[in-house]
Amino acid sequence: MGLLVVGSLGLDTVATPFDRVEEALGGSAVYISLAASYFSGPVYLVGVVGEDFPKEYIELLEENHVDLEGLQIIEKGKTFRWSGKYHYDLNVRDTLLTELNVFENFDPIIPEKGRKAKFVCLGNIDPELQMKVLDQMEKPQFVVCDTMNYWIEGKKDTLMKLLKRVNVLIINDSEARLLAKEPNLIKAAKMIRDMGPEMLIIKKGEHGALLFGGDVIFSAPAYPLEMIYDPTGAGDTFAGGFIGYLHKTQDLSPENMKRAVIYGSAMASFCVEKFSTQGFEDLDYLRVQDRYREFLNLSRFDEK
Amino acid sequence: MGLLVVGSLGLDTVATPFDRVEEALGGSAVYISLAASYFSGPVYLVGVVGEDFPKEYIELLEENHVDLEGLQIIEKGKTFRWSGKYHYDLNVRDTLLTELNVFENFDPIIPEKGRKAKFVCLGNIDPELQMKVLDQMEKPQFVVCDTMNYWIEGKKDTLMKLLKRVNVLIINDSEARLLAKEPNLIKAAKMIRDMGPEMLIIKKGEHGALLFGGDVIFSAPAYPLEMIYDPTGAGDTFAGGFIGYLHKTQDLSPENMKRAVIYGSAMASFCVEKFSTQGFEDLDYLRVQDRYREFLNLSRFDEK
Repeated sequence: MGLLVVGSLGLDTVATPFDRVEEALGGSAVYISLAASYFSGPVYLVGVVGEDFPKEYIELLEENHVDLEGLQIIEKGKTFRWSGKYHYDLNVRDTLLTELNVFENFDPIIPEKGRKAKFVCLGNIDPELQMKVLDQMEKPQFVVCDTMNYWIEGKKDTLMKLLKRVNVLIINDSEARLLAKEPNLIKAAKMIRDMGPEMLIIKKGEHGALLFGGDVIFSAPAYPLEMIYDPTGAGDTFAGGFIGYLHKTQDLSPENMKRAVIYGSAMASFCVEKFSTQGFEDLDYLRVQDRYREFLNLSRFDEK
Repeated sequence: MGLLVVGSLGLDTVATPFDRVEEALGGSAVYISLAASYFSGPVYLVGVVGEDFPKEYIELLEENHVDLEGLQIIEKGKTFRWSGKYHYDLNVRDTLLTELNVFENFDPIIPEKGRKAKFVCLGNIDPELQMKVLDQMEKPQFVVCDTMNYWIEGKKDTLMKLLKRVNVLIINDSEARLLAKEPNLIKAAKMIRDMGPEMLIIKKGEHGALLFGGDVIFSAPAYPLEMIYDPTGAGDTFAGGFIGYLHKTQDLSPENMKRAVIYGSAMASFCVEKFSTQGFEDLDYLRVQDRYREFLNLSRFDEK
């Protein structure tokens, strides 16, 4: 057992048409590890913050059994900050500010016990750093990786090397099209899997997600929410729920991968119902089970 | 028994990045009635063409048991023509030409036996004409209706009256957002159902379709095609498969509606594999059953 999560920790200022929050807990490593720790520990977080990172956020992570031995707190350093504004159509957002701060010189160092972890989730950071993380791992069994347009366009060569070392790549539909240079998602998926990852998950926001693995294609619906409060972190929460469930069950069969995609989707649906991590930081297990069943009802039809 | 289909018949000139076809059989009434007649007859088509409408197209419809008593052939008239060009990303197309011709003065007159039909599918035409069709029906039991941005923007009042008389509205996601003036599809669906239709189907192209009815929300996946040859008519073929299957089974339960959505999706997936109606005009029943099962495999996951 043991899941290593590497990514960003930040303070997010987010405006939606409904409300606004300042310097809320954010960052890919935060969303991933909180969602994953919900299913099973130990979860080892590796990342960096400045001295200004609020103590209550540290406590929140610790209360959720996220192991912070690998969290670097830089003396006199300033935490990564991001600010964004969502439009009336929440599929559209503007980034107002990105301040890398201590994240600019982040050098991920994996603590001894983290190196032995069998499950690894590489949040969306520079592929060179993602590579550096893998170099430190002893014998990872299952590596999940996220990336984004910025690295696909700017660090393609490193990314291509990295992709040969990951089991599952999780990206969104526009990233998949960009990476494969192919508008048809099904064809793009085949091309991306030829680059290395045995499995690929394409996140499609309000349209759900697609899982490609072996001969399996699985289409997961999105949870039908009438009110999306804040989409920030939904993709990372999905990844955290996905790998957290696999880590808990230790079952990498295609059928269990499908369940993991649904659990990831369920966690993401709770995430977007509130600002920051509030939607899933105190989640009752029964509510998650209920939502899983709602996903079943949503997509089930019978043979005929 | 009996299904009445009203809509356009046309000659389509379509260019895709892969190929091009000139004056192929097209029009909403054609796609709908061919897809519906695949499941069960009698299907009564009501529409209009000019004298130039090729005899072979008439024969194709007749061979598929589409009843053409309600087809008006205007002496010396010219058939409706449409021409479009798809981009490399097939989700984007330009309309190059629309020639209404005989369609401009179309006055749908329903033949005696068509008036007794219990199932009605109103293809995407002027809502005033759709209304005129309903006025002639004796006692329709189940009315499915399509519309588009052009009528939502230009004939809203008539459309609103019409919506109170239909059981199922089938539109795409951008039309749903426009009709409800609401970007969230789930909220938009609720608002549209408040306008009249008990049920709503939102087509999302490569992302599948959503069915809203009673307390049920059903999310149908799209069939994962690596090669889409020509998307023209996919939405109409979906509607034809949907109502054709319901017409055949005469079962309007929620569970059967879900099956009908999958059969509609299956027919649409055959449609886009070739130009015009070639993808489904000679379809073997076993191939449709196979595709239905593929949809099952695509979306099925188990309880946990």
